[in-house]
Amino acid sequence: MNFSSKYLEKAVDEISNLPGIGKKTALRLALHLLRQDKEAVGSLSEALLALKSKVNECQKCGNLSDHNICEICANPTRNDELICVVEDVRDVMAIENTGQYRGLYHVLGGVISPMEGIGPAELNIGSLINRVEQSTPKEIIFGLGTTMEGETTTFYLYKKLAGFDIKLSAIARGIAVGDQLEYADEVTLARSITNRVPYENSITQNQNSRA
Amino acid sequence: MNFSSKYLEKAVDEISNLPGIGKKTALRLALHLLRQDKEAVGSLSEALLALKSKVNECQKCGNLSDHNICEICANPTRNDELICVVEDVRDVMAIENTGQYRGLYHVLGGVISPMEGIGPAELNIGSLINRVEQSTPKEIIFGLGTTMEGETTTFYLYKKLAGFDIKLSAIARGIAVGDQLEYADEVTLARSITNRVPYENSITQNQNSRA
Repeated sequence: MNFSSKYLEKAVDEISNLPGIGKKTALRLALHLLRQDKEAVGSLSEALLALKSKVNECQKCGNLSDHNICEICANPTRNDELICVVEDVRDVMAIENTGQYRGLYHVLGGVISPMEGIGPAELNIGSLINRVEQSTPKEIIFGLGTTMEGETTTFYLYKKLAGFDIKLSAIARGIAVGDQLEYADEVTLARSITNRVPYENSITQNQNSRA
Repeated sequence: MNFSSKYLEKAVDEISNLPGIGKKTALRLALHLLRQDKEAVGSLSEALLALKSKVNECQKCGNLSDHNICEICANPTRNDELICVVEDVRDVMAIENTGQYRGLYHVLGGVISPMEGIGPAELNIGSLINRVEQSTPKEIIFGLGTTMEGETTTFYLYKKLAGFDIKLSAIARGIAVGDQLEYADEVTLARSITNRVPYENSITQNQNSRA
């Protein structure tokens, strides 16, 4: 592209470094910002700097927080005998939004992916083992995705944690609520039949999620 | 969404104010920035501030520039008897990229759109009339889009400029180079037949655009 302003070019270069944003979109965003007033652009720019300088990983669980220990870990009303292992901060948000879980979390920061060069050492797995050794929770829930990488990571964690006297569980896989059986894929359907639950449980769960 | 950090929430709010970026994408971008080093985020943040504080509209043509007069207007080798009227800075870039045009531009900053409350007064039309009065160019090319709004604006400009002794032309509408006739829409095809050009011209143009 042929820029008439080097500051515009620099801004477009920087914006297009963001994932999923190409040069054309970056130019559209830069031109949008040029039309905004100075305060709006200043506010965006400050928010990005503050994001990087003020947000920490919780020292206990790896969740993002403005403090050393996140609000969930610091909350005395949460059940600290239950730890749900998730891949990402977004998974914490998603589970918190359901309002169904009152335990703690452990954020791995990714899943094992040899293709992307991510091994166990790159993830917050050491800190999970330390945490389990020190606080001996009653149950650990594996809340990772059902991708090949997610399943591999879950199995790795299972092997690492099998020696402890802790209940290890995984979030249920099955037909999504509201889905028709005929459209479900074979693997999911097979799993949901194998891992069927007593009907009474399923009624209670429905009522809970409606409450 | 349930943010565990108010700085993260603020950054996501600010990013999602950008056009075409929703909360989920904003969160993805914010988490990406958190994984970058401080210099990268600082550099993005500075580039956005510099964009707003250092980039001006050219006082002559409305193109974006780091100076009061843009490089194109300031270039003595360009033909100042030819002015191409375009909607947007991106159109200037697109035409410059062809390398086929050596005249000047006039950037309107939009097109007349009653639906969006944009009338002639909101556009750089007054400055175009002043420019024409002062420098009397030989030809003005209307290079606006073929949308309803673009055509309306072109017609408005035509009425305003018809009194001057200037050749008024519009960029050619027709079948795009490389397109099959059968897939062209009726209106375009009809126009390309009505506005047919002598075959010799069309050969020369092809050779030029290949050169």
